Amino acid sequence: MNESSRIAIIGGGSWATAIAKILRENDLKLNWYMRNLDTINQFKQLSHNPRYLTGVEFDLNHIEFYNNLDEAVLNSDVIIFAVPSAFLKDALKRLTVSLEDKIIVSAIKGIVPDENMIIGEFFNEHYNVPLDNIGVISGPCHAEEVAMERLSYLTIACQDTKKARSLALNLECPYIKTTISDDIYGTEYSAVLKNVFAIAAGICHGLRYGDNFQAVLISNAIQEIKRFVDTVHPISRDIKSSAYLGDLLVTCYSQFSRNRTFGTMIGKGYTVKSAQLEMHMIAEGYYAVKCIKEINEHYNVNMPITMAVYNILYERISPTIEVKLLTEDLR
Amino acid sequence: MNESSRIAIIGGGSWATAIAKILRENDLKLNWYMRNLDTINQFKQLSHNPRYLTGVEFDLNHIEFYNNLDEAVLNSDVIIFAVPSAFLKDALKRLTVSLEDKIIVSAIKGIVPDENMIIGEFFNEHYNVPLDNIGVISGPCHAEEVAMERLSYLTIACQDTKKARSLALNLECPYIKTTISDDIYGTEYSAVLKNVFAIAAGICHGLRYGDNFQAVLISNAIQEIKRFVDTVHPISRDIKSSAYLGDLLVTCYSQFSRNRTFGTMIGKGYTVKSAQLEMHMIAEGYYAVKCIKEINEHYNVNMPITMAVYNILYERISPTIEVKLLTEDLR
Repeated sequence: MNESSRIAIIGGGSWATAIAKILRENDLKLNWYMRNLDTINQFKQLSHNPRYLTGVEFDLNHIEFYNNLDEAVLNSDVIIFAVPSAFLKDALKRLTVSLEDKIIVSAIKGIVPDENMIIGEFFNEHYNVPLDNIGVISGPCHAEEVAMERLSYLTIACQDTKKARSLALNLECPYIKTTISDDIYGTEYSAVLKNVFAIAAGICHGLRYGDNFQAVLISNAIQEIKRFVDTVHPISRDIKSSAYLGDLLVTCYSQFSRNRTFGTMIGKGYTVKSAQLEMHMIAEGYYAVKCIKEINEHYNVNMPITMAVYNILYERISPTIEVKLLTEDLR
Repeated sequence: MNESSRIAIIGGGSWATAIAKILRENDLKLNWYMRNLDTINQFKQLSHNPRYLTGVEFDLNHIEFYNNLDEAVLNSDVIIFAVPSAFLKDALKRLTVSLEDKIIVSAIKGIVPDENMIIGEFFNEHYNVPLDNIGVISGPCHAEEVAMERLSYLTIACQDTKKARSLALNLECPYIKTTISDDIYGTEYSAVLKNVFAIAAGICHGLRYGDNFQAVLISNAIQEIKRFVDTVHPISRDIKSSAYLGDLLVTCYSQFSRNRTFGTMIGKGYTVKSAQLEMHMIAEGYYAVKCIKEINEHYNVNMPITMAVYNILYERISPTIEVKLLTEDLR
């Protein structure tokens, strides 16, 4: 990609909107695909996303909205996917044109359900996108703070670091600093696992474990992330970097994390179903823990926290009992 | 030390009281030294510490109070120091008997001012205590949560790991789990540095940096701790362990951390003096940052966060400017 690359954003949520805002700071023209035509029409009327980050105004002269995924893709060189991982396959059903010569960027932070692949692997295997054309945008970055223009750091990963650098340049602005990385597997898996650990942090909070214990839990969580990603994709990486540890911290310690809130309800005794009903949404970590557990059947990494969350959510083991057992594995 | 070791606690603060509570869970007899005779008398009347963790009741039949440091030391084999590092030298002025055959345990989390040594080094050099007889008790552990009997993990460090194990056994109880370590330098320095970084976290919070930035700051902070301790005392250690990373997390993310509160006031524009007056106390990190800065003059470790805190507190550089410069060094 280069400065004249045409960029598409796929998705209309808060993270998609935050990325659009950042790209627009660099005066880039955007092709923006949303599934819902009503949303597009309202966006055009209001000059802001009608549902997410509604305080962020856009200059519509530089945004081309698409309701047709093929068209958005055909008119773009770089495609940034920012839809929930659970809906990715569904969204791609509408695609009939090739992605082979595109740069595909995951801002999804997820695993493709059923496939148990990270986003990049999935595009590589099913859409013949070369791995060197796969990018990942990673936090620590709540979209809400981007909206407020609070200083945040993004890590842009691509095995072809020249492409990572080029995308990073397009994302730098007064309130966004960027780092590049060659670790698409580690950043994506880490971004997925953090949601599982945020559920764990919530469960323990719901069970009235205190701050001392949370600090131990999260220290063990980053060790668990390191064990897993070093096994699945053994390259040199510093797990203490912002893209791994920072992303874990912002998710686990945030009162606003949906995954943590979901976990807290589980810890307080809600069933999965009642917690989901109460929250009107499903925490991403709920799906992620099942995928990770299944992937790990091939690797057998020691993942006590992940397994505890899995057992509580899918095997209906009592949180009290499961966390009590977990405390024996932590140190 | 062994099961019949006689244990002394030196200090009457909240952390000393928490350690006393834990030791008493194991039904150990305690020799407890406090400088203030009034405090001892009130303690005896009330059966609890009159000023700290007042909800923790003690069975006075198993506690011998001392107002004479020599006597407390002579009657004990293991001496646990839990006084603020700023007052340690002052407290030791009252000591005229030898410590050479004692096991000295630091629960201080500090550096001896002027000497610029960790507690263990100081006792080794000035009191001829063999390094193998020096222990460190490290968190993550707010004393207040010990009082509430919320599950917490302690790391007990001693170069002689048999002694670490033995002390750890005396500190294990239903709500305290222990790990041992041979790293007295790393745990002590890390416990000191965390207070500096908690001040940094507070300053940034006071300046209205958000959660995304805090996560980056703390990820960089643990990297800074690793660089420093690996240089000063290069042994094998996992900095992601609870004693290092966990201790940093519980301090930086706690709203109740005095160091973080102090930093927040500085970030909001208070002078050091007015913040100290307002808080009726001096945050430990205020002293620590000067010691670390001086120690690091010999090592030249890259410590941008530490230097930023030093420049703000001692060189009166504007927090706004100093943190803005710091943001360029983080990633």
